[in-house]
Amino acid sequence: MNKVKINKYLRELIPFHGNHFLTGNGYFGVRGTLEEYTKEHMPCINMAGIYDRVGDKWRESVNAPNPLYTYIVSGGKKYSLPDVECESHMQELDIYRGIHMRKTTWRTEQGIVTVTCERFASMANQHAIGMKYSVCTNYDGEVEIVTGIDGDVWDINGPHFTKLLISENDKILSVTGITGEMGISVTAQEKVCTDFDAEISTEKNNKSVFRRIRIKTQKDKIYTIKKTAVISSSVDDNPVIEDIKSADYDKMKNDSINAWEKIWEISKVEIDGDDEAEFALNYSIYHLNCIAPRNLKSKSIAARGLSGQVYKGAVFWDTEMFMIDYYMHTEPEVAKTLLKYRIDTINGARAKADEYGLQGAYYAWESQEGGIEGCSEYNTVDVFTKRPMRTYFRDKQYHVSAAIVYAFMKYINATGDYGILAEGGAETIIECARMYRSLLLKKADGNLYEVHDVVGPDEYHERVNNNAYTNRMIKFCFEKAVEYTEYIKNKYSSYYDKLNEKYDLDKLIPLFKTSAEEILIKQPDENGIIEQFDGYFGLEDASVPEVRARLIDPKEYWGGAYGVAADTQVIKQADVVAMLSMFKDDYSKDIMQKNLEYYEPRTEHGSSLSACMYSLLSCYTGDADAAYPLFMKSASADMAPGGKEWIGLIYIGGTHPASEGGAWIAAVKGFAGLDIIEGKPICRPCLPSHWQGMRFNIIVQGKLYCVNISKDKVDIKIQ
Amino acid sequence: MNKVKINKYLRELIPFHGNHFLTGNGYFGVRGTLEEYTKEHMPCINMAGIYDRVGDKWRESVNAPNPLYTYIVSGGKKYSLPDVECESHMQELDIYRGIHMRKTTWRTEQGIVTVTCERFASMANQHAIGMKYSVCTNYDGEVEIVTGIDGDVWDINGPHFTKLLISENDKILSVTGITGEMGISVTAQEKVCTDFDAEISTEKNNKSVFRRIRIKTQKDKIYTIKKTAVISSSVDDNPVIEDIKSADYDKMKNDSINAWEKIWEISKVEIDGDDEAEFALNYSIYHLNCIAPRNLKSKSIAARGLSGQVYKGAVFWDTEMFMIDYYMHTEPEVAKTLLKYRIDTINGARAKADEYGLQGAYYAWESQEGGIEGCSEYNTVDVFTKRPMRTYFRDKQYHVSAAIVYAFMKYINATGDYGILAEGGAETIIECARMYRSLLLKKADGNLYEVHDVVGPDEYHERVNNNAYTNRMIKFCFEKAVEYTEYIKNKYSSYYDKLNEKYDLDKLIPLFKTSAEEILIKQPDENGIIEQFDGYFGLEDASVPEVRARLIDPKEYWGGAYGVAADTQVIKQADVVAMLSMFKDDYSKDIMQKNLEYYEPRTEHGSSLSACMYSLLSCYTGDADAAYPLFMKSASADMAPGGKEWIGLIYIGGTHPASEGGAWIAAVKGFAGLDIIEGKPICRPCLPSHWQGMRFNIIVQGKLYCVNISKDKVDIKIQ
Repeated sequence: MNKVKINKYLRELIPFHGNHFLTGNGYFGVRGTLEEYTKEHMPCINMAGIYDRVGDKWRESVNAPNPLYTYIVSGGKKYSLPDVECESHMQELDIYRGIHMRKTTWRTEQGIVTVTCERFASMANQHAIGMKYSVCTNYDGEVEIVTGIDGDVWDINGPHFTKLLISENDKILSVTGITGEMGISVTAQEKVCTDFDAEISTEKNNKSVFRRIRIKTQKDKIYTIKKTAVISSSVDDNPVIEDIKSADYDKMKNDSINAWEKIWEISKVEIDGDDEAEFALNYSIYHLNCIAPRNLKSKSIAARGLSGQVYKGAVFWDTEMFMIDYYMHTEPEVAKTLLKYRIDTINGARAKADEYGLQGAYYAWESQEGGIEGCSEYNTVDVFTKRPMRTYFRDKQYHVSAAIVYAFMKYINATGDYGILAEGGAETIIECARMYRSLLLKKADGNLYEVHDVVGPDEYHERVNNNAYTNRMIKFCFEKAVEYTEYIKNKYSSYYDKLNEKYDLDKLIPLFKTSAEEILIKQPDENGIIEQFDGYFGLEDASVPEVRARLIDPKEYWGGAYGVAADTQVIKQADVVAMLSMFKDDYSKDIMQKNLEYYEPRTEHGSSLSACMYSLLSCYTGDADAAYPLFMKSASADMAPGGKEWIGLIYIGGTHPASEGGAWIAAVKGFAGLDIIEGKPICRPCLPSHWQGMRFNIIVQGKLYCVNISKDKVDIKIQ
Repeated sequence: MNKVKINKYLRELIPFHGNHFLTGNGYFGVRGTLEEYTKEHMPCINMAGIYDRVGDKWRESVNAPNPLYTYIVSGGKKYSLPDVECESHMQELDIYRGIHMRKTTWRTEQGIVTVTCERFASMANQHAIGMKYSVCTNYDGEVEIVTGIDGDVWDINGPHFTKLLISENDKILSVTGITGEMGISVTAQEKVCTDFDAEISTEKNNKSVFRRIRIKTQKDKIYTIKKTAVISSSVDDNPVIEDIKSADYDKMKNDSINAWEKIWEISKVEIDGDDEAEFALNYSIYHLNCIAPRNLKSKSIAARGLSGQVYKGAVFWDTEMFMIDYYMHTEPEVAKTLLKYRIDTINGARAKADEYGLQGAYYAWESQEGGIEGCSEYNTVDVFTKRPMRTYFRDKQYHVSAAIVYAFMKYINATGDYGILAEGGAETIIECARMYRSLLLKKADGNLYEVHDVVGPDEYHERVNNNAYTNRMIKFCFEKAVEYTEYIKNKYSSYYDKLNEKYDLDKLIPLFKTSAEEILIKQPDENGIIEQFDGYFGLEDASVPEVRARLIDPKEYWGGAYGVAADTQVIKQADVVAMLSMFKDDYSKDIMQKNLEYYEPRTEHGSSLSACMYSLLSCYTGDADAAYPLFMKSASADMAPGGKEWIGLIYIGGTHPASEGGAWIAAVKGFAGLDIIEGKPICRPCLPSHWQGMRFNIIVQGKLYCVNISKDKVDIKIQ
């Protein structure tokens, strides 16, 4: 298998297919929508790391003018989906070559007209898009192809372009949108080549420019146009080099396919005995490849990748927790870019800490350019009152800073690149630890530091005390701050001196040491269960279906102060389980097993970050068959419709790169049992019983290893 | 003026008039409903301090079987309000004699029938009720008086009587209800004397017993029955002594009137130049007199007095904050009973502290017998979803314990009765201080103790940190624990030794000292304003009308997580202002004035506890004319309809004794400026400009003083 494919058109799946058939190259994502779609049907070319705000609406990422906009007219009538029913429709995505294809037939008054279109976001030139659009009639007649740039883009909290510059110059069409908040310009340019004679005229309106290509068709003859387009913006790290005038569709396509092939040479995972799992996993990897900020500086990956403005196009802890593992073992420079984004945006995190009266760096829950916090205090809407609903994602999910520290640790272990510490990494970690130090509370007659009023990974329980996960992560952060400071003191002493001058490390580090020693760490109770937070065991022990049955409106938010889950033990996602899988060496298999058994039935898995954690921990307990369905759930997040698309009245659809990264983690760290010991990969596999073997490549500390696992053998070779 | 009166019947005011015309004697309250009312119209004889729970509904006070139940039948038709429209209706309450009267005429097919009824809850015998019921026709005809005991009582969370014992014995009717939870029996007995010949038969059903008194009426002749009734219960502190057989209506009435006269001799307040204010204040005092637990042990006063089961018949901080001042200066033994209730119920408070992982005593937010916490975690209902709504009154209104300590201080200052400390008062105060000690938190690098996650007096803002009022009250509690422990060490050394053995006071008291010194006390900012809690100034500064306009449903709760006030600076009631008035010697008039000006426009006065605090503080700033309308608001809480009757979907109507006590405080401590200095009353009056003078009596440290204030003179004489 190398393709996802549909053979039927279903209007209600327009939003899903936009994600399912996504193409992209890290600079932008092109939703898998059809060429004729206008904004109601959510086509978009979503730009990485460019944001804008309209009025007091949420700040969100920006969509470029759409140079793929194309439809046909026959007998004066526009034939386009979903407005005109088609005779047949096929759509497919070749994940190994990064090419999207659609073929649709309509019955016109004269006969059948067939449209075929292939397109791709160039993996070789991050600014380029290519499209080959063909039309064929089974009669002699006339067809018009209308094709150009649609500047009237889909926006959730737009419109972001307060000005549009539209031009036609030497047959090159161009639309530049200029954003209102910062005056950033985003430009789409395109040109078209035809292999037939046609009458072509150009039209403009105040938002679009397009050509009318009038073709006298001969029965069964295929008329093809080839479009090359370029997207650029005024904040580009690399300006557009290739001249659109000289761009050639076929060369562009070949270059892109070659680039994809190189990526797949390293990143493909083969599974013997389970084609479905193999494809789902590689489909996940495909998405991770589409959104990697390969040629960008200080950019990271949004929670919904490049599939649109959902979640404000912002960077969440998802990147550090669930995605970076894949990149650091297949394209370490991408992983470094992700961490550099955090280093470079520390001032945003400092500003946020300061806003909350804290020291150090408190990273944004929804980070935009410069580390700006995109998360609103009102992050969903009450379905009953339609009022914005006060949430605490922004204020109280303190664990986000620690996730970044955790990612530094993972990255350094995987790559051996301690140098990142001297490039700002150490300061980032120290600043995170300072933030946590200012959260610590001690009771008047208490011995331990406690952390109150937090939201853990399980967002359904707000403002809790001593969340097991959060406290453990804070301890970790203190420990790493101590360890890495020690390291730079020895290895990068002038950098250390600079930091010491700034932070008085000689005094600060001992405080971090006692903080790590004295923070309250939740221990397993007499049944081996670790309580998620103070008082959790006292909550109603209702089952997930029971709690679901209490919903009055299917879109209502389960959490918040009064959500159906809030006063029960039902949790949104891995919390204690996440902690156990992240600190696996601290706990026995027995404790892991007991907590899995306790928490799994109480978990709604309402987040795409959940299943992979349970899957991974199940592998750590040696139970690959229990891990398998959760791995598949994680790997299939964008394979089939039915994902969670609403929180309250807020649309949250889009691709799920954290889930996809989580699937890779579950496969490679779980089933294959990859660990890095003294800078080298070792594997202790725990394969699902129907798997015969696995093969994948992995980069560890600069060396490429080929891992070949069979039922009874592990073979790891340096290539 | 000595009466409240209406001359028109309005069905929609049935609930209000039940409160407005209330009679009572501390043992029970009789709602000012009409004799013919059945439970739909909320008649009740609400018992002091007797509680019951049905299933998992709220625990609440119990209503006795109703021995006043009476109606007439003419021509086979029942004439009763509100079902049969009347020709005329009059209802009045003589507050100085404690007598309720009604007169109603109906037009029957034969002519006009007039019913007159006077009744009273005996102030001389707390078990007794008297009723004189007359009927008169303006034609010769027939009328039947149906009168007996209705055991089918009005309940909010009932039915509480799982068994009813109904009997007739020697013309005495009796209904005993037995509660389901504890098996407490509540008995109503009655007998009737007639001054005319009539055919009388008795009927029973499974909930009631009554007589049919058939009268052949002569035109314009008045037929009168006199009923004497007795209410008793199996938990009575004093069993019923008077034998109902020998009870005589007229003697009973005279005894009651005499008892009232004695009470008024001390408690009446006269105001020259403002009859309206004088009456409103004495009407307030009337209510306080109706509900005082005069002959009871270990009973206190419910937040809605004895007007029904609203607020579960439970005792709130209202008693200690707003009512006890009146009693300690007019009937000190009642004040002592109120405090003894807290001393005697300390085990309930200990159990609650323990439930929350705290040391010491955490008094119930809604205290029932034995200090049982009546407050649910779900204390209101969401109007939109109809779901019970999680509230934090129970969990987080820590200030309730300190209010009790504050009341001990007030009582000791007013009465000089330090002996109460050795009767358990000192232990109560130490236990409250221990509870507060276990709330103190210090930041890792902080110097001061903070108190997090509380609800202050302003309940619209839940789970806040460092509420100015709460922190100040906690400091006060530590200080008093230190001071009073010192006192008993000197004066009651054997009691001290016992406590020292139990609590290791030699170690504990120094901890209380440092706690008092190191707790964070909010200081005025550069504008002189004290921030209500951390972050309050950062909330939206919307006006009260603006916030009110955001209500979608008039019954929705303003507070909670998402209420219209929650994220604004609009507050429910005095909070900083309460603190300033309670610690007036700590602050300059300028600071008081500035905070009044800041907080008053931001206060909804959604609690009956609010206005009097603002009034009192205005007096302290010397502005009696600003204080006056708030005093009147407080004194008139039960004078006119229109009070707040709903929180969410929960009915909260009833009398407002805290408001009435607050009116007395505003008048006597505010306008008259009473202070106790070295055991003696002094007054620094600040009269509203249209008042010519005030006269009232006051008991201070065992001596009765007569205070006579005129425009230019203060005269305080011992009587």
